[in-house]
Amino acid sequence: MMRISTVVHILGFLLMFLGTAMVLGVPFSLYYGDSDGQALVISAIVTFLAGFAAFRFSKFGGDIRPKEGFAVVSLSWIFFSIFGSLPFLLSGAIPSFTDAFFETMSGFTTTGATILTDIEVLPHGILFWRSLTHWIGGMGIIVLSLAILPFLGVGGMQLFKAEVPGPVADRLTPRITETAKILWGVYVLFTAVETALLMFGGMNLFDALCHAFGTLATGGYSTKNGSVGHYQSAYIDYVIIIFMILAGTNFSLHYRFLRGNFKVYFRNHEFLFFLGIIGVASLIIGTDTFFKTEENLLKDIQDTLFQVVSILTTTGFGTANYEQWPFSSQIVLFFLMFIGGCAGSTGGGIKVVRLFVLVKFIYSEIVRLIHPHAVVPVRIGKTTVPRDVITNILGFFILYVFLFALGVFIMAELGLDIDTALGSVAATLGNIGPGLGNVGPTDNYAHIPFLGKWVLSLLMMMGRLELFTVVILFSPSFWQK
Amino acid sequence: MMRISTVVHILGFLLMFLGTAMVLGVPFSLYYGDSDGQALVISAIVTFLAGFAAFRFSKFGGDIRPKEGFAVVSLSWIFFSIFGSLPFLLSGAIPSFTDAFFETMSGFTTTGATILTDIEVLPHGILFWRSLTHWIGGMGIIVLSLAILPFLGVGGMQLFKAEVPGPVADRLTPRITETAKILWGVYVLFTAVETALLMFGGMNLFDALCHAFGTLATGGYSTKNGSVGHYQSAYIDYVIIIFMILAGTNFSLHYRFLRGNFKVYFRNHEFLFFLGIIGVASLIIGTDTFFKTEENLLKDIQDTLFQVVSILTTTGFGTANYEQWPFSSQIVLFFLMFIGGCAGSTGGGIKVVRLFVLVKFIYSEIVRLIHPHAVVPVRIGKTTVPRDVITNILGFFILYVFLFALGVFIMAELGLDIDTALGSVAATLGNIGPGLGNVGPTDNYAHIPFLGKWVLSLLMMMGRLELFTVVILFSPSFWQK
Repeated sequence: MMRISTVVHILGFLLMFLGTAMVLGVPFSLYYGDSDGQALVISAIVTFLAGFAAFRFSKFGGDIRPKEGFAVVSLSWIFFSIFGSLPFLLSGAIPSFTDAFFETMSGFTTTGATILTDIEVLPHGILFWRSLTHWIGGMGIIVLSLAILPFLGVGGMQLFKAEVPGPVADRLTPRITETAKILWGVYVLFTAVETALLMFGGMNLFDALCHAFGTLATGGYSTKNGSVGHYQSAYIDYVIIIFMILAGTNFSLHYRFLRGNFKVYFRNHEFLFFLGIIGVASLIIGTDTFFKTEENLLKDIQDTLFQVVSILTTTGFGTANYEQWPFSSQIVLFFLMFIGGCAGSTGGGIKVVRLFVLVKFIYSEIVRLIHPHAVVPVRIGKTTVPRDVITNILGFFILYVFLFALGVFIMAELGLDIDTALGSVAATLGNIGPGLGNVGPTDNYAHIPFLGKWVLSLLMMMGRLELFTVVILFSPSFWQK
Repeated sequence: MMRISTVVHILGFLLMFLGTAMVLGVPFSLYYGDSDGQALVISAIVTFLAGFAAFRFSKFGGDIRPKEGFAVVSLSWIFFSIFGSLPFLLSGAIPSFTDAFFETMSGFTTTGATILTDIEVLPHGILFWRSLTHWIGGMGIIVLSLAILPFLGVGGMQLFKAEVPGPVADRLTPRITETAKILWGVYVLFTAVETALLMFGGMNLFDALCHAFGTLATGGYSTKNGSVGHYQSAYIDYVIIIFMILAGTNFSLHYRFLRGNFKVYFRNHEFLFFLGIIGVASLIIGTDTFFKTEENLLKDIQDTLFQVVSILTTTGFGTANYEQWPFSSQIVLFFLMFIGGCAGSTGGGIKVVRLFVLVKFIYSEIVRLIHPHAVVPVRIGKTTVPRDVITNILGFFILYVFLFALGVFIMAELGLDIDTALGSVAATLGNIGPGLGNVGPTDNYAHIPFLGKWVLSLLMMMGRLELFTVVILFSPSFWQK
């Protein structure tokens, strides 16, 4: 039986935090003389009071059990997106609730799919809030993937436990708190460094902060209609490329690096595989586009690298319209949408380590056919992956494929063409943002039918919360006593 | 170490059989006064002599071990396609070896993808041979899937062992022979009945036989440019629908039915799931096409049912140009390409029972998350599927997805557009035949680039031989002593 009071209590606490965060955009609103400050303040008060009421009239049950854990995780993304859409609605920036919810869910899931056709007309407080939803979402994901889901055994996440020294405790709660603090330190530090570097390249504080939020969270909301391409700056492109790679890497590696273990990256098999994918994909696309479009070589390398890293890490920033690239390059980018970042990063998708395990598993199956009585372990480095974890990962992959197919079917039934159906589902389930077809890098999601926006919102949430966390809520077993 | 002599011995025996079969088209050649009889006779002699030489100068090593089993299976499809292309080459019907090999591999793998633009100009002996490659391929598949692969443990095929009473023996060889005889009896009987029913509907013996070959093997080669649509006959459509369903069903069910167990079909969960898929897909597409194209209702039902059954069973006969149907209907057909027929049928694809196990497995993973200490077995009816078999099936599915993605990537690199790349790979890997885009139901594979035809031929073979049987040959472990 689920202790609803515990769930409400935690959600209340989180909403009070959200309400407080909403005020952060007000200084920018005042500085730029925009009229959206009031909307932010009212939204903040409403959210905080709702949270306070929930917190006050409920009681924490002592600890969190699996069912409550799943409920808290899914419900917090849903309630954050409901309350988080208030600033958009109250300021009039996005008048429709469906659109505002889509935009906010896209923010908190660090997807970056937008329904806005003109971003630059928005007041600064709202733009700041929009980028901040990414950053807050990213914080949530780091804790979720390194401290919560491993204990719940979702999709083989047991593998990805943060190897961060912390108080060893039987209870989940204190460990989460400690891990969160350490990893958020890294997250805040990287955000500050990127902001400084972007300002050094000519951005003002506002744009630099917003782009740093979008990068570290692998979100992809920009403050410019032309995304990062707006700046036409190789320096800015490369700064963002480097920070997208960092954001797509397991944050516990960064922590250990900062503690003085400088070789930690190059001893991590997932990270090396991740770099390998970037290398191979860039080589294929770079060659393809260079010979077929006859661009300048340096610019070709820059654009290719940016787009490969942006899509693989599921960020979704753009500097080039890849829909004008050869179709063979687009197919590579399309496949990258499924891979995603490393486990324990803010990146979405299937995750590099899972792909790594899948490939090794297939090889072990082949060897087993040749030597039926041999024991063929699947290893990552020197660690043997337990059979149960492999099974969880296989299950995750299959569910990902099924949900993708179901999503494409629904979007097709709603009238989308093949490119747009494939692109929109891959880009939302994988939390990338821009897709292909009519939701490509120069388009947006405004024209998606009403029902389609809700389906895509659900896909963003499922993709972000490692599928099972959300799918479980649709299972009758979950609701049985 | 592989005993090459044993492999050569078996291949030689099979080639002698193939050479003999080639002569079967000669009577039709003579009857219709065509000039292709000579090409068939020369091909038959060359093939028989090659087989005889191989058989004579090699020795059977006593039994067949896994490595030899895998080698025999893959090599027999390759050599059948090489020698089987002789009639096309020698008669001048298909002058290019690449094209002739593609057409023959497509025949023996019961795919039905053709490079011919005009089928009706071909002489009758050649047309008969073309359809016969399907029928021979289908015979091979029944034995392979019910008597050989289960013992080799490929992709969970352990589940699909023929439950046919036969001499219990430790050795593989006598059991294969006995099972083969029984199941081929059913196969021949059904072919004879369908031929008679088609003749009753107005086809001549030649066309009726060729279409029966194409149906029972779930192949799809027709003797008419308009495929089955040529006949414009509801009677013929429904006869073929019923026999496609029978061909897509586990042949050991048919055997047990004919032995008097009349309830066997409706006690088989895979068969019920298979009918369910046909029902649901037909309902979706039928509604879709009826309201969007405003066809006559009876004709709409007939066309929908025909196309759904033709694609799900991986036959590939056509009565309607489904590329003119709404895109949402095409997406459903596209997904059906992946499912395929039942295990132990002549149908290709992933197979219904595997999908059934995958769905049940995902559900068991969800229940396990809610009750971490519960043991959640995956069951088909009353049988619990062993953990190892589930793992094999998961591996099969993942390899299918990987090979599909790799195939699409290669076809895109070769310059195909998105629809054609997706369609051609899905339709060859799944052994359907016609796909989407420029390889749709009214097109053919003639325009596919040279290298692409070889890649698609390999995909047909991989799909037909349950992937691992072929992929294993690319693994270094296989070649180690």
